[in-house]
Amino acid sequence: MSETGWPPNEIKLLLLDVDGTLTDGGLYFTGEGQAMKRFDVHDGLGLVRLQRAGVEVVLISADRSPIIHMRAQKLGIRAVIDGCQDKGQAVRMLLEERELDTSVALYMGDDITDLEAMAEVGHSAAPASAVATVREAADYVTTCEGGHGAVREVCDLIMSRLGEQ
Amino acid sequence: MSETGWPPNEIKLLLLDVDGTLTDGGLYFTGEGQAMKRFDVHDGLGLVRLQRAGVEVVLISADRSPIIHMRAQKLGIRAVIDGCQDKGQAVRMLLEERELDTSVALYMGDDITDLEAMAEVGHSAAPASAVATVREAADYVTTCEGGHGAVREVCDLIMSRLGEQ
Amino acid sequence: MSETGWPPNEIKLLLLDVDGTLTDGGLYFTGEGQAMKRFDVHDGLGLVRLQRAGVEVVLISADRSPIIHMRAQKLGIRAVIDGCQDKGQAVRMLLEERELDTSVALYMGDDITDLEAMAEVGHSAAPASAVATVREAADYVTTCEGGHGAVREVCDLIMSRLGEQ
Amino acid sequence: MSETGWPPNEIKLLLLDVDGTLTDGGLYFTGEGQAMKRFDVHDGLGLVRLQRAGVEVVLISADRSPIIHMRAQKLGIRAVIDGCQDKGQAVRMLLEERELDTSVALYMGDDITDLEAMAEVGHSAAPASAVATVREAADYVTTCEGGHGAVREVCDLIMSRLGEQ
Repeated sequence: MSETGWPPNEIKLLLLDVDGTLTDGGLYFTGEGQAMKRFDVHDGLGLVRLQRAGVEVVLISADRSPIIHMRAQKLGIRAVIDGCQDKGQAVRMLLEERELDTSVALYMGDDITDLEAMAEVGHSAAPASAVATVREAADYVTTCEGGHGAVREVCDLIMSRLGEQ
Repeated sequence: MSETGWPPNEIKLLLLDVDGTLTDGGLYFTGEGQAMKRFDVHDGLGLVRLQRAGVEVVLISADRSPIIHMRAQKLGIRAVIDGCQDKGQAVRMLLEERELDTSVALYMGDDITDLEAMAEVGHSAAPASAVATVREAADYVTTCEGGHGAVREVCDLIMSRLGEQ
Repeated sequence: MSETGWPPNEIKLLLLDVDGTLTDGGLYFTGEGQAMKRFDVHDGLGLVRLQRAGVEVVLISADRSPIIHMRAQKLGIRAVIDGCQDKGQAVRMLLEERELDTSVALYMGDDITDLEAMAEVGHSAAPASAVATVREAADYVTTCEGGHGAVREVCDLIMSRLGEQ
Repeated sequence: MSETGWPPNEIKLLLLDVDGTLTDGGLYFTGEGQAMKRFDVHDGLGLVRLQRAGVEVVLISADRSPIIHMRAQKLGIRAVIDGCQDKGQAVRMLLEERELDTSVALYMGDDITDLEAMAEVGHSAAPASAVATVREAADYVTTCEGGHGAVREVCDLIMSRLGEQ
């Protein structure tokens, strides 16, 4: 079990915001619009291992972008909700569809548009780089910043709770 | 109201420098010239919310680049002045056109070419990463650096002053 | 000889992980997939000089990407193993092919998929930015982070041991 | 005059290394090779003002890349030496051609390939992020890192010495 003792439950569903959580919040624009996001290799390995251990991962973003789908595909993540204007509702629907209790779901986000979704699940996390309100609302704040291992940190805690290394 | 008590007035117009203020000052060049700028997702949400609350946002840059227009469009910012060689004059004209008092206008910039514009309005701010002269001249220096939440910090202070959260 | 006294042997083969070791772990995605990795100019010079001094350099990555081959080509590195799912086995085969003793081989990596390869050679290093398990397993942890001079630091130590500056 | 009292002479020629000095040392590679370098807007303004004040700026790089020429063009820098394998010789030739004394020339670089060039001129500077040997050899080490205002810092010191602000 994790040294931190968190999360207290076994997690079956990890819900992740994208910009600022899976990335460092950077939006790279060219003259044609947003061209790139920067993801983290440590986060990627954590998510691949988590899915192999039976935990489903879902990406939920307000941004509508093929970039998110490309990263999801690379990591074997099938469920991606982009262009999402109401993350709270999206999370409620996901839990209903999967007939999962909130106690096995964990949401991680970094800005105020994530607050409602965080309240819909049993466990919430925020990267060290989240805005103050979100850090205060989260059950767990990672040592790492978004796009620099914050998601990996949560993946490892979930794995540790599952008794895997 | 804001804990800092700043800005002391309700702001109706936020004037923003781009490179070093809305970005971290990085200019990404390819063999064809400048290709990208890196913007920040936290800044973006702050600016969207500020406009919804009735504050107009204007981008003023010495750089002439379609990148600035693409970012503005994404954020719903209609007024963009690029290729601007005299930011002081640009600010004076904007205030005249809008028939606004300097007391409701706030300018944020990070380099010496912003100093004159800062002096034309009632309130001025600079990111922590601004050059020393500009930090000294500014009414308020943000904790965050440019391209890493500096603009969001100012947006939140303006919102707080408006009585919004 | 090196001030640190490490590595204790003369090294003839330097085996390097790519993402997080030769880069800062950033994966830049566009709507078409992974488009870029960011390498470091100090690392590059260190690797060019090391090869001139007679040390062979091999890149070993789980990622299958033409980006790795382009960087290798620029640095005159001929041996590149990408899309590698078992780095331990890859290292064993490399040592066999070259008929080299493990005592002249050094592996540098930053994540748990590098652990087995690290155990196959006489000397192992990890960047300061490696995950905790890897930092604990490594013989030497650099002061610099991956993509910010970590590889250069190891190159300079190997050169120093060879009596070159 | 500068508070630091450095440089002690009026400078007429500023010679600049590119990667790690005018950039943070990052080399962005795609599957087609090196695609981008990241420059700094503060450095840019410093170099434009310095040239207006009558100081010539020359870029000297071991890398052969159109990226360097694009950045130079944007800043109005006419003299660019790329693909340079012997920076010491390049500097000697530049001084001869211009019939300038070494006492009015300043070289700024960050790696050991810059050491010979630094020794050819009267004044040398290195960014805080330079390798140790170069920091020790330089007359002046900037507070800022390469690609994050190191060049601007030197520009401002030269300007200050010229009696300009």
